This record gives sequence, structure tokens and C-alpha cells, in this order.
Amino acid sequence: MPKHYPVGIFDSGIGGLTVAAAIRRAMPAEKLLYLADLARQPYGPKSPRTVTRYAVQAAEFLVGRGVKALVVACNTASAVALEAIAERFPELPLLGVVEAGAAGAVAASASGRIVVAATEGTCRSQAYERAIARRRGGCRVTCVPCPLFVSLAEEGLTDGAIVESVARHYLAPLFDRLGGDDCLVLGCTHFPLLAPALARLAGPGVRLVDCAEATSTMLAETLRGLEAPVGGAGGLSLIATDAPERFARIARRLFPSLDEIGTVELADL
Amino acid sequence: MPKHYPVGIFDSGIGGLTVAAAIRRAMPAEKLLYLADLARQPYGPKSPRTVTRYAVQAAEFLVGRGVKALVVACNTASAVALEAIAERFPELPLLGVVEAGAAGAVAASASGRIVVAATEGTCRSQAYERAIARRRGGCRVTCVPCPLFVSLAEEGLTDGAIVESVARHYLAPLFDRLGGDDCLVLGCTHFPLLAPALARLAGPGVRLVDCAEATSTMLAETLRGLEAPVGGAGGLSLIATDAPERFARIARRLFPSLDEIGTVELADL
Repeated sequence: MPKHYPVGIFDSGIGGLTVAAAIRRAMPAEKLLYLADLARQPYGPKSPRTVTRYAVQAAEFLVGRGVKALVVACNTASAVALEAIAERFPELPLLGVVEAGAAGAVAASASGRIVVAATEGTCRSQAYERAIARRRGGCRVTCVPCPLFVSLAEEGLTDGAIVESVARHYLAPLFDRLGGDDCLVLGCTHFPLLAPALARLAGPGVRLVDCAEATSTMLAETLRGLEAPVGGAGGLSLIATDAPERFARIARRLFPSLDEIGTVELADL
Repeated sequence: MPKHYPVGIFDSGIGGLTVAAAIRRAMPAEKLLYLADLARQPYGPKSPRTVTRYAVQAAEFLVGRGVKALVVACNTASAVALEAIAERFPELPLLGVVEAGAAGAVAASASGRIVVAATEGTCRSQAYERAIARRRGGCRVTCVPCPLFVSLAEEGLTDGAIVESVARHYLAPLFDRLGGDDCLVLGCTHFPLLAPALARLAGPGVRLVDCAEATSTMLAETLRGLEAPVGGAGGLSLIATDAPERFARIARRLFPSLDEIGTVELADL
């Protein structure tokens, strides 16, 4: 692919913008083309079969537009559909947030005792367990489904009493029961929005791994390997499969750093 | 339609089972065929265009199976897609939860000051405002989007500290600010699951209208009008467009009264 092509990013919804924002900060010269499959979100509770079908369609759409690399910025889709996308587009440089988050966890954890907060689909897939085991043996990985975090983040409820009580509901029993966990992976792209509240709950001995940052780091390496980084102005174009105005409104509220959020294109997959 | 045919019911997810349960209690001889469009849920945040497309497809599916009446047990779909379904199937006896909830509210409210808790899509459509105005002039209807209630109910979090804090977040400012409201419509089929917590918050002067019960009452009238009630054993058959095992598991946990929940059929729309 020509190196002036954009990097394609897709997520079921708005959460993947945490990844887009991290990439914008680290590589401001890159053009990003972001697809949110709002018509069929959330992917988290859906079956692997259905998520794979949706994810391959999203990849086909972005490849059809022309992208030099594809970032699957949805943990559920990364967990279950990355191989299917790779089979469909064997030449395409392809990154998933799960692989990046696992790499970040292995680097951050001294004890090898790692907690992953994720969606039900990601937990059920055991993708984090496998991705961490490929990088380092003997880790103990505990994956906790935290589906309400997604709704809270999408509502703009990112801190305060409600977030704290939901976070305690999911995570306090775990941090009370287990000993020696020193790493909490925010294994859903929505969760970095709740990071301050989660960090308080986890306590000072636990390092948070933000898979959006980890993915941005991995993409920089990939583009260097392809000799595909660019100079120039960069930018972010947004496409949604439903409700583009609502998407733009929420995106502007949740991601004030992404000041280029203008019109969102509507597309059918 | 032959009167031994089942009544079709559809919802985007599990919430419409509150309607199915109310119908089972009131009309145990009826056969019910319930379709949950889990592959594309939730409908609440989606655009009218998309919800209408999905709802018409769901109606086509159930009509294809043979139903003597169709209950749209999803407030969002009732609010935006009922007319499109009626145009597609002009002969089909068709009921929506919004019409039934509005009828219940008008009957329950003395002051005519009515609060409707609903999804974003239902509120944006102003369907409750219109349906109530058709029945009684001069009412003041305040529609409050409460999207987190859906996620809470689906997680089985139906009471306790988290539900209370979320309910206060949405509704306390309203009950504090407004005076004279005497009716709270549970304008989403998930919300009756949270009824005890919502009733405590609303206080003793506010009557709760459960649109599941209201819909069951309206269906009984419709079937009597058609001379289509049946005798016999009745029953409930479930179909889902994704994740049928998960659907059965959650349905059994949330609806212990529906002891006939067995295998859920998987269908593509």
C-alpha cells in the first residue's frame, strides 16, 4: 500500500477513539480513517461467529477505501476475529488491541499476576490468557467481565460515585481475594476513560496497562518496519454505520483532545 | 389467521420477556413465539431509520412463521417503527408497548403530570408524548432517557446500591425539580425488573405504570375482539438472532416464573 494512505482503525463504537487519540498524540503526521459499527454495537455480548462476520465486513470496507495498515481497536473483535481478517487480507499489516495489551502487561508486571478487565466476549475467548502465555510462561491471568463499564463510559459517566460502586462490584472481590496482582489491563478500549477511578480502586501497588497506548506503540513499530511513516499534517476521518450526529457529539465530549472531530460520514456495511 | 396460531412477540433483547411473562400470567392458554434480535441489540441508541429496518425484518420473520397477532415488545421499535410494520402487514393485528403504556399512564394519573423513563431512542421520538396526548389533552409528560437501566437489568443487577445510585442520577433531579408528578411509566421493557428500586425512589405518591402489564391487558382485549383466544396448554417458544445459550441462561435467571425456558432456536434475519 502507498505510504500516504491512512491507517484504518475500527471498533464497534466510540471506545476505539482511545486508540485513535493515542496514535494522534504519538504520530501526528499519520492520517487515520476510523470506522465505528454503531448499527451493530456492542460486540461484547455477541457470539464469536457474529462478531467475526461483522469484523470481516468492517475490514473489507476499510480496505476498500484504501488503508496501509489496519488496527482492530475493539478488544472483542481482536480476541475472536483477528485470524479471520488475516486470512481474508494476508498482505495487510494488521494489529489488534489484545496482542498490544498483552505485550504491555508482560512488560509492566513483575509478579506475573495479571488482572484483565474486559467484556464478556473477550473473557470467554481467553484471548488475553493465550496472548500473555505466548510472551511469558507461568503468568496467572484473571479475566473479569465488566460490561457495565462500557455503558458508563458511553454515557460520559467516567468518575464519581456510580463508577466507583460499579468498579467495586466487579473488581473489589478480586483484589481482596487474590494476592500479589500487580497489573490491571484495561482490556476494552472504553476502559481507559475510567482509568482514574480504576487506579484508585486497584491501589498504588497495581500498574494499569492502557491497551490504547500499547497499540499506538505497536503501530509505530509496525510502520517503522514497513518504512511507512509519513510526514505532513495527518488527521482523523470518522465513519459510522448509524447515528453519525450522536457519534460526533459524544466523541467531542469524551475526546476533547481530538479537536478535528467534524462531520461523521454515514456508511452501510 | 387461524386462532390456534401463536402470538408473535419481538424485542431487541431480553427485556420483552417482561411482556411475555405478563401475557403468560394473564392468558396461559396462548402459545407465544418470542424473537430476540440479540445480534443487533440494543435498539435504544440507534437511529429511527435503522431501528425501522430491523423491526420490519423481525416482523417479516415472525409473520413468515405464522402468528395471529404481533406484539412489538420493544419501546424503541414501538416508538419509531409501528407504522412501518402496519404498512407492511395491513391485515395483521399489531400492538406496541408505547400505546399500551400511554393508555396505562392516562388511567393511572390523576394530575396528568407523567414521567416516562425510557431509552434515548424512545425519548427522542416523543412517541409517549404523542400517544398520551391522543388519549387526554393537557397532560405534562417528561421523558427521561435512562440507558444504564438496560445494562443493569441485563446484568441481573436489579436492586441494591448500584441500581439506587444510577436511579438517583437519572430521576432524583426530576422528582426534586418538578412538582405534582403522580405517575412514572416504566417505558422500556427492561425497567419492570427494577420496579422495587424505582418505586422507593419515586415515593408513595407516584404510581408506577408497567408497560408489560398494560400490553398484556391490551392484547387480551384485541384477542377478544378477534374472537381469537384459545383454550389448551399454551407455551412459550424462544428464538434469538445470536448467542442462544447466553439468552436462555439470562432468561432463566431473570424470569424464574417462565419455567418453560428450554432450548432457544438460533435464526438469521
